[in-house]
Amino acid sequence: MKRVEAEIARRMQSPVGMIPEISDHLVGAGGKRLRPLIAIAAAGLCDYRGDGHIKLAAAVEFIHNATLLHDDVVDGSDLRRGRRAANLIWGNQATVLVGDFLFARSFNLMVEAGSLDALDVLSRAASVIAEGEVRQLAAAGDMALTEADYLTIIEAKTAELFAAAAEAPAILAGADDSRRGALAFYGRSLGLAFQLVDDALDYGGDTAALGKSVGDDFREGKITMPVAVALRGASDEERAFWSRVMADKDQTEEDFAKALDLVRRRRGVEATLDAARARATAAADALDVFAPSPLRDAMQGLAEFVVSRAS
Amino acid sequence: MKRVEAEIARRMQSPVGMIPEISDHLVGAGGKRLRPLIAIAAAGLCDYRGDGHIKLAAAVEFIHNATLLHDDVVDGSDLRRGRRAANLIWGNQATVLVGDFLFARSFNLMVEAGSLDALDVLSRAASVIAEGEVRQLAAAGDMALTEADYLTIIEAKTAELFAAAAEAPAILAGADDSRRGALAFYGRSLGLAFQLVDDALDYGGDTAALGKSVGDDFREGKITMPVAVALRGASDEERAFWSRVMADKDQTEEDFAKALDLVRRRRGVEATLDAARARATAAADALDVFAPSPLRDAMQGLAEFVVSRAS
Repeated sequence: MKRVEAEIARRMQSPVGMIPEISDHLVGAGGKRLRPLIAIAAAGLCDYRGDGHIKLAAAVEFIHNATLLHDDVVDGSDLRRGRRAANLIWGNQATVLVGDFLFARSFNLMVEAGSLDALDVLSRAASVIAEGEVRQLAAAGDMALTEADYLTIIEAKTAELFAAAAEAPAILAGADDSRRGALAFYGRSLGLAFQLVDDALDYGGDTAALGKSVGDDFREGKITMPVAVALRGASDEERAFWSRVMADKDQTEEDFAKALDLVRRRRGVEATLDAARARATAAADALDVFAPSPLRDAMQGLAEFVVSRAS
Repeated sequence: MKRVEAEIARRMQSPVGMIPEISDHLVGAGGKRLRPLIAIAAAGLCDYRGDGHIKLAAAVEFIHNATLLHDDVVDGSDLRRGRRAANLIWGNQATVLVGDFLFARSFNLMVEAGSLDALDVLSRAASVIAEGEVRQLAAAGDMALTEADYLTIIEAKTAELFAAAAEAPAILAGADDSRRGALAFYGRSLGLAFQLVDDALDYGGDTAALGKSVGDDFREGKITMPVAVALRGASDEERAFWSRVMADKDQTEEDFAKALDLVRRRRGVEATLDAARARATAAADALDVFAPSPLRDAMQGLAEFVVSRAS
């Protein structure tokens, strides 16, 4: 992971000063580096003996950070990892363009990794992510959104990159189809678990621990799993409330407290965390095709850890 | 080119309705398809006998359109090919995300073309383009911008994609270094000529012919070649004018007329067009490494045509 950090730091450089400045604001702010970690671990599990996985690991982090920058334009979130969102400091224009730079740079890195098949998986993931983002935007405030619809969105928007991060290094290592498939499934399931926990925390975590304001999704009118659950069993009066705050985005100071109460009454957070736990377990189980090893244990442990941060 | 159109139409499809809708607004609006045309012609000049050039041609058009969408967020231009800018219709968020989709899709197409070396050229071009865009943004209203600085910006922002569009098919065709280099030079020079003509037209073309408002660059405070020329010989009073309208973006209704007058007095449009003509000639000459053929003639003619639209 040290080599990944060095590659990330090196490749976000540019003679155009605004690029390292904005990139560093986000990429350099640390973050969990969960996606590169998965890529490196997947390469290890497949006994890969080259340098390409370092490139792929940096590439997936760059894709992730490009989408975060573009999300800043998208959702106007106030906090991103405890700092002010890039667009509030540098404006929408620079934020979009530096995101484009990171995205392009991620493809440079993938090319350097030297496998067209791995590139195929990652470039398809990039399309699917963009589709997922647009789908979520189009679904904003849609009262008819079901839990299944929501899972479709986050499978594209979030889980696809985790899946590609795990699968691409397996391709580089020449792993057989069953191992490659197992790693893709591991990444996808872990990604879903991760996003579901994130959604649950937005209705119950605390800002200090999360580096992100609680209630962000609510204020953006973004219907996530806890609300989709609450909507399923909602009374007419509750549905009118959700429609006003989510579809019309007509919110008062007290509405988030009311939303929290409704989500809790419908056990929206619990149902979301249950779904997350099921995905984490599935992720861990998928790795059983690999022989037992400390690395396999660590990757299975990572899946459990992702959901543990919610409790 | 019919096959390129079909590939473009097919690959901008998505089950997420907003994607074809916004893509079609821009991609489907026609445009000159200059970059794909160059790619197809370059493949022909190198006697390429496969299908990969169709993919590359569609890919460069997608990259171009992705940057146009992101420019819409960037510069708030009112007209784009005679239609309303996408961000005014669908908002910044959707515009950014659909741009991301087209960008990702362009990489899918490049992977399908099957050459890592061609992908290398195109993915590097994508980084350079983003750097050029950021550099231009950072230079907005910079009174110290020289003509050379400006050429550096448009070489990255515009000409790099033309160069890659011409070079990548040569790689696919297995052309030798001298032909590959000649095509890259042709594309780069033609791209510079094209951009310089565009800049000149913004201080003298007419909206109906261009599908773009005259004075766009001026109103955005974007210093282009005609203004860089006018700045070089500017009196203190003229410099104060440019500083107010470009750096401070403090503009009145009459200021564009005054700017036009100053640019004309300093022969800014003529100098810009002279530079464009020199690049077009250099582009045409570069193709002399290829044996004479009707296709070579057509590509040399294209270089002249690009500058002819200004007169």
